[in-house]
Amino acid sequence: MSFLAELGAALPDGTVLTDPDVTDRFRMDRTTWLTPGCPVAVALPTTTAEVAAAVKVAATHRVPIVPRGAGSSLCGGSQAIDGALTLSLERMDRIVDLDTADELVVVEPGVMNADITRATSEHGLFYPPDPASRDFCSIGGNVATNAGGLCCVKYGVTRDYVQRLEVVLADGTVIETGHDTVKGVAGLDMTGLFVGSEGTLGIVTRAMLRLRRRPSGAATMVAFFPTLTAAGRAVASIAGSELTPSLMEIMDRATVNVVEDALGMGLDREAASLLLLQSDAPEPLRGTEVARAAELCSSAGASYTAATEDPDEAEALMQARRMAGPVLEQLGELIWDDVGVRRSRIPALLGRIEEAGERHGAQVQTFGHAGDGNMHPTLLVPRDDPDARRRALLAFDDIVEAALDLGGTITGEHGVGSIKAPFLEREVGRANLALQRRIKRTLDPDGLLNPGRWL
Amino acid sequence: MSFLAELGAALPDGTVLTDPDVTDRFRMDRTTWLTPGCPVAVALPTTTAEVAAAVKVAATHRVPIVPRGAGSSLCGGSQAIDGALTLSLERMDRIVDLDTADELVVVEPGVMNADITRATSEHGLFYPPDPASRDFCSIGGNVATNAGGLCCVKYGVTRDYVQRLEVVLADGTVIETGHDTVKGVAGLDMTGLFVGSEGTLGIVTRAMLRLRRRPSGAATMVAFFPTLTAAGRAVASIAGSELTPSLMEIMDRATVNVVEDALGMGLDREAASLLLLQSDAPEPLRGTEVARAAELCSSAGASYTAATEDPDEAEALMQARRMAGPVLEQLGELIWDDVGVRRSRIPALLGRIEEAGERHGAQVQTFGHAGDGNMHPTLLVPRDDPDARRRALLAFDDIVEAALDLGGTITGEHGVGSIKAPFLEREVGRANLALQRRIKRTLDPDGLLNPGRWL
Repeated sequence: MSFLAELGAALPDGTVLTDPDVTDRFRMDRTTWLTPGCPVAVALPTTTAEVAAAVKVAATHRVPIVPRGAGSSLCGGSQAIDGALTLSLERMDRIVDLDTADELVVVEPGVMNADITRATSEHGLFYPPDPASRDFCSIGGNVATNAGGLCCVKYGVTRDYVQRLEVVLADGTVIETGHDTVKGVAGLDMTGLFVGSEGTLGIVTRAMLRLRRRPSGAATMVAFFPTLTAAGRAVASIAGSELTPSLMEIMDRATVNVVEDALGMGLDREAASLLLLQSDAPEPLRGTEVARAAELCSSAGASYTAATEDPDEAEALMQARRMAGPVLEQLGELIWDDVGVRRSRIPALLGRIEEAGERHGAQVQTFGHAGDGNMHPTLLVPRDDPDARRRALLAFDDIVEAALDLGGTITGEHGVGSIKAPFLEREVGRANLALQRRIKRTLDPDGLLNPGRWL
Repeated sequence: MSFLAELGAALPDGTVLTDPDVTDRFRMDRTTWLTPGCPVAVALPTTTAEVAAAVKVAATHRVPIVPRGAGSSLCGGSQAIDGALTLSLERMDRIVDLDTADELVVVEPGVMNADITRATSEHGLFYPPDPASRDFCSIGGNVATNAGGLCCVKYGVTRDYVQRLEVVLADGTVIETGHDTVKGVAGLDMTGLFVGSEGTLGIVTRAMLRLRRRPSGAATMVAFFPTLTAAGRAVASIAGSELTPSLMEIMDRATVNVVEDALGMGLDREAASLLLLQSDAPEPLRGTEVARAAELCSSAGASYTAATEDPDEAEALMQARRMAGPVLEQLGELIWDDVGVRRSRIPALLGRIEEAGERHGAQVQTFGHAGDGNMHPTLLVPRDDPDARRRALLAFDDIVEAALDLGGTITGEHGVGSIKAPFLEREVGRANLALQRRIKRTLDPDGLLNPGRWL
């Protein structure tokens, strides 16, 4: 039997799509500047058994598989591959179990990140990792890329919240990993191995996640700095204090100007950078914390600071940060970067990013997570301008090299995917990468899972 | 050349010990009820290159290797194996680098846990994971077992603090894993794979650890409960509140009585359990938090509560908890257990532990980490009483089975080692364990690293 006939026989009617008009929407992710391939088919399983069945048929026919969540990848991690089966988990979107006493939730991979917090907030709970894409990124993709977000500076990343996984391996075997409890050292940490493996080791079909008590509110501070060095001093000084901000975001001058053009909020266009900080500590501590943060910013040389506990004022400031991406997307094609360095090296990195943009005549805006050193230099390319795109990609490469020069990482939270593979060996080293490839071969001897990315 | 001759030639003079009188102290760990083997030799390398050289010689001669830190294992994880080379890391005890701005420290594996906090406290920093053995357990062993401790309820376990590792693989290859930053998703999480692998995948020769700002102090609360159910209600109620205790320990009646016998502190011998809680939140919040915790305990049915911000009073209460182990060790041989369940199942687990003790006529004291569901039922065996030991081991098995029945883990922080291997498949499942064994074979094809434990 042919692959498609066997796949069709193994899955319920309506689960396998082959009409190009219908499968087209599963080809691309948010890495719009890459050209995706054409899948041989798209499967839309609704149960773990169906995922396993599809994987078994693909394994028998040696057909590669691209696992796909909500398609919000910024690293080309879920783009279709010519001749491969795209296995979309979007129909597996149930919240299976909620244990409010132990603050655990069990979800299928197609559940959207923000829906977990929505479904648990009536119990006073939330799911901390909060990518800016939280409304349109799925938890399966979050697990695949060990996604971060804005509140990670206080609450950590996806890996810190995944207690258990159910995974379909390359031969269709289903395993369960992990423990109910934060502490649990029985056996190798297979959960951690799958988190961040970008669909190259197995397909996550279920996840048990830790939740946290939802804070009762937050206080917010904004500061503008005349130089990047002054902003760096402020970040270091806040990080070295007893304050525990739940958010500490930075935007460079270019980003501030783009946002100000769009929103007209009265942001200081001359400042070298804007720092946005929140504290969600219990009252009255949160007010004290943002006031103290404002003092530390002033001491570090801020030209302006303001603190507020008013939710509407805070929301307006948060909008300035959250809209950076969407506003830029209106202006042209975006090439998102995602590098990380030790916090103390942020000013050096920001300087190197500006230089890279100038060197190649590329327009780069940088914003990101100052508290954990994870920056998103984002290159803006006018539509239908191949030369501008070429120059932007040269700047992109230089920015990644700059992060490596500073001892940092080529990707803090977006993933390696298709776009960072050339840089991976320089970061992790030849012997470590060779070992990772041996582990990949152990789990996926025929190389069928998300091939041609980085492993 | 013989193995010993070649090993001796590969390492500096004085680095290889073979005299049984001298090697004897490297045979045993704190799992005193197991009989250790006799090593063919003990190597005491002082550099990564020497570790790699020793591993290469052992690999050539197919001689198994038992990596050993400070020998404080409670699961038989570092006990000598007949004919194996014991590779002690105790001479690799340097703090290599301290970056106070980015709160990172690089250490060799033989550094004692508490020495890291000692060496960094003058900079206002500390290393959170704090096993009760912190003064005599090494960081290499902590990494090998993903060690926990008292403050994990707020600060997490070893895995949450390991940024990078240098590891010597089974063939003597040296790799570096990890990232400088909390966020970093370039490649598989090899750091996480080695953390908790108990010396079965490689030998850690260096670790970069995250530090945290040292809190300025702590407030303490103690409560006594007439029933285990009431204590369970209090734990659930505190966990479901906005409080963020930095410590929440529980002791059962048997433990309270043993401690009271030794210390005469006036503890309530009739209470079913004692709950000890600390908050290290900034002032004035910490005082508010312990007062609120006391209220919640009273509402849950506590017969007595007291809160204090006085450091001496707090220290006396902490002594009651910390002395539980040492006091018990004076009374006989101890068989430590280490199981974990969801917080809400602690009362059920404590009940099952009491039953197991009664069923087999074994004396069991339980104390542990109520905030994260990790309990240490500790069996006390009169010295030179083989029948009591036999009965205690039957109770030990029943306790592990009880944790599994409750969906929990067979080991929260001590490790599988030699003693929990028979239970491992039941916890992790056949397919998952088979996969772990395949990964083990990939990294250590000849099975030379800490063989005969659990992988």
